Amino acid sequence: MSSKKINLKKKFAMFDKHWSPRVIAEMNDYQFKIAKIKGEFVWHNHKHTDETFIVMEGKMSIKFRDGEVKLNEGEMFVVPKGVDHKPCAEKECKILVVEPRGVINTGEAGGKYTMTEDIWI
Amino acid sequence: MSSKKINLKKKFAMFDKHWSPRVIAEMNDYQFKIAKIKGEFVWHNHKHTDETFIVMEGKMSIKFRDGEVKLNEGEMFVVPKGVDHKPCAEKECKILVVEPRGVINTGEAGGKYTMTEDIWI
Repeated sequence: MSSKKINLKKKFAMFDKHWSPRVIAEMNDYQFKIAKIKGEFVWHNHKHTDETFIVMEGKMSIKFRDGEVKLNEGEMFVVPKGVDHKPCAEKECKILVVEPRGVINTGEAGGKYTMTEDIWI
Repeated sequence: MSSKKINLKKKFAMFDKHWSPRVIAEMNDYQFKIAKIKGEFVWHNHKHTDETFIVMEGKMSIKFRDGEVKLNEGEMFVVPKGVDHKPCAEKECKILVVEPRGVINTGEAGGKYTMTEDIWI
C-alpha cells in the first residue's frame, strides 16, 4: 500500500496560521483539507460545487444571507453550490473541509485570504 | 438554507446494526456514510473509485493483500481504487466513510453484507 494513514491531530499540530487550509488527502479528484479558523472570513460562494465542513475541535458558525448555522465539535454541514456563505469562529476552531481539487477558498471574492496553491502537509 | 447541520453522535445513536452504512449527507455526487463495524468484513475492492475511512470512535484495521493498516480514533485512510481490502474491528468501531453515490459496500464480492439501496438517516 502506497497510501498512508493520516492522524488528524498530528496534522493540525503542523501549522498555526488561520484561514490557511492544508491538504492532507485526496480521494479521486476530491481533497480533504484541514484549517484553523478564527475571526470572520470573507463572503464568497463556489459556483460549481458543494463544500463540506466538519468541526473537529471548537465551534464555528457559517453565516448565510438569510441566516446562520452554528456548528459544534462533531457536527458537519454541506454548503450547497452557489450559496453565499461566510465562515466565522469567535475562538480558534479546527475544521475538516471536503471539496473537489482546485476549489479556491474565497471563491471569486479574492482578498488577503485567497490561497492560489495547495499546501500539502 | 434548506441544508441542515448534521450531528454525528446523534446519527450514530439512531441505529445499531453492524456493517450497515447509513447515508447522512451528500456533497455533489459524493456521499458521507456512517457505519458501526465489528468483526471481519469481506474482501472486496471498488474498481472505479477511491474510498475514504475516518475513525470517529474506537479502532479498526484495514487488511490488504500485502499488509494491514491499523487506525485509531481521529485517523483516516484513503483506499485507492481497485485495491482489495477487508475492514475489520475487534470491538465495535464507529466510522465515517466518504465515497461517490452508488458505490456498493461489498464491491463485486456480494454476500450477506451487501447493501443494494441507500438508507438515509
